Amino acid sequence: MNSIPDLSSLLRPIRLQLDGVDTLLHAVLERADEPVRSALAPLLDGGKRLRPAVVLLIARLYNRESAPFERLAAALEMLHTATLIHDDVIDQAQLRRGHQTLHTMWPTGPAVLAGDYLLAEAVSVTAALGIPRIVQILADALRAMCAGEIKQALQRERPSDLREAYYQTIEAKSASLFAAAAEMAGLLAEAGEAQVDALRTFGQELGIAFQMVDDILDLTGASAELGKFPGADLQQGLITLPVLVYLEMAEDATPVQSVLNGKRDAERVSTAVQAVLDSGAMELASEEARTHAVRGRAALCILPDNTWRHILDDLLAFVVQRRS
Amino acid sequence: MNSIPDLSSLLRPIRLQLDGVDTLLHAVLERADEPVRSALAPLLDGGKRLRPAVVLLIARLYNRESAPFERLAAALEMLHTATLIHDDVIDQAQLRRGHQTLHTMWPTGPAVLAGDYLLAEAVSVTAALGIPRIVQILADALRAMCAGEIKQALQRERPSDLREAYYQTIEAKSASLFAAAAEMAGLLAEAGEAQVDALRTFGQELGIAFQMVDDILDLTGASAELGKFPGADLQQGLITLPVLVYLEMAEDATPVQSVLNGKRDAERVSTAVQAVLDSGAMELASEEARTHAVRGRAALCILPDNTWRHILDDLLAFVVQRRS
Repeated sequence: MNSIPDLSSLLRPIRLQLDGVDTLLHAVLERADEPVRSALAPLLDGGKRLRPAVVLLIARLYNRESAPFERLAAALEMLHTATLIHDDVIDQAQLRRGHQTLHTMWPTGPAVLAGDYLLAEAVSVTAALGIPRIVQILADALRAMCAGEIKQALQRERPSDLREAYYQTIEAKSASLFAAAAEMAGLLAEAGEAQVDALRTFGQELGIAFQMVDDILDLTGASAELGKFPGADLQQGLITLPVLVYLEMAEDATPVQSVLNGKRDAERVSTAVQAVLDSGAMELASEEARTHAVRGRAALCILPDNTWRHILDDLLAFVVQRRS
Repeated sequence: MNSIPDLSSLLRPIRLQLDGVDTLLHAVLERADEPVRSALAPLLDGGKRLRPAVVLLIARLYNRESAPFERLAAALEMLHTATLIHDDVIDQAQLRRGHQTLHTMWPTGPAVLAGDYLLAEAVSVTAALGIPRIVQILADALRAMCAGEIKQALQRERPSDLREAYYQTIEAKSASLFAAAAEMAGLLAEAGEAQVDALRTFGQELGIAFQMVDDILDLTGASAELGKFPGADLQQGLITLPVLVYLEMAEDATPVQSVLNGKRDAERVSTAVQAVLDSGAMELASEEARTHAVRGRAALCILPDNTWRHILDDLLAFVVQRRS
């Protein structure tokens, strides 16, 4: 893979269109009454805007007029933010995108409803594109996300096949929405069926690689979320990719097992993180993320060969090389 | 208004179509994985099916093939159930449709996600009808419901105009979805613009009248929800219609004010309920509900004059005359 510039340079060619997405998101805030407006504003403001970027790059790939793609991109960012609001209620998270989470400021009820409000806006904006199939893909992605998260939240004992469970989880959590974003953009661009399939695969692999690198960054403490410490996911009992790889190869996994079994004091978490770092699991996990990026790149082959395809390729490279 | 038969007799002419809706709801459960399936089954099973009935009667009014209307009706019932799941999380309610509420069996997180799952299904089924405008109406109704409920949940002091606040609340809570149901059915039937508007008004007034009678039944303890006692809403500090009317006319409203101000023991609630019953506020509240039913009936005038319009009329009469 190429050595890649930072995200902001990478997305410079679609900066105007990304600004257009921000304008649409602000319009959604404008038409919300208080207190919904002030509550949602900081949540819609942050984020890497990767899903919108995928949509906007696909518009350019097919040389399409930008406006409807900006609306689709805004809808995806709203749906994504809505799921983050509900996730934060569930996880009782304190910070999101550098701001206090909504449920720390509001009671649970209105926080849940604010997520629903954004879901409704996302559906409304998507429906206004006039292509029912695109709405269905959005809804099906949401359904897959919910089903996966419910399953994960309610499982009483550790699944017997940890690797299978891990892939199911990250597909629900990240890959399904990236895959939907790329597929919807392909349909909106009126790409042929084979190309839409390829775009979906690209989105899927991008989402998987993205989540895997998130997992890796959790252990180095370089996670994008402010206020996180190394091993925050592990402390919550989550089996992230490096932990999974470690469990698959460690002769004596006691330091990590004891945290997973509920002994979650800071010292034990720190010892467990060090054990994973010392084991070589991080390198293997990075390798696995790169494998998915390569698969994403392979899917791009049948798409129009122009600058924009190369930027999609660079986006894959960015996702696996990023340090935060 | 006519004296009307019970709901089951009233809906007998569309019994087959209502069974079709049940079949579609079961199909949604069938495609859900466990534990989502078992959790949602009892919630989707109960209820009066009033929103589906409105949709199915409008199909017959225009002599349209039933299948797409059954799908729309199922989507509305799913959306309605999804909002009930989230409402029950918010209110910490124990019973719904005679069953334990979902959040009493599951942690808050998965219960919220199960609501999202049903929202996604509702959107997907609606989108499959192939008419983007209908999806937008569904989404806009959801948005209005959320905005209204957030506002109500977060208000720190009692609003200065209680009557205006009451109408805003019930429009968000009940009327918006009934109005959307009738409007969507009209669009699906390809009724003309004026008739679609009339149907929306019919739905709106039906929803307002329905909620007003719910308010009245709360004070007589005849509420359809098992395990409720007279004045359950009042005990929660909610200003229902009879309470509003009482506050508007009572010279000394102390018994009710003290409950609203937070003294919510059983004896004070019982005294407050008796004060409202003795005041004549119930009769005035019933009269107000009937006024909205009459407005709903007036909206029906421009629709095709056939048996089905008369059943829509009877539905209005049922809603204001019902005793549970």
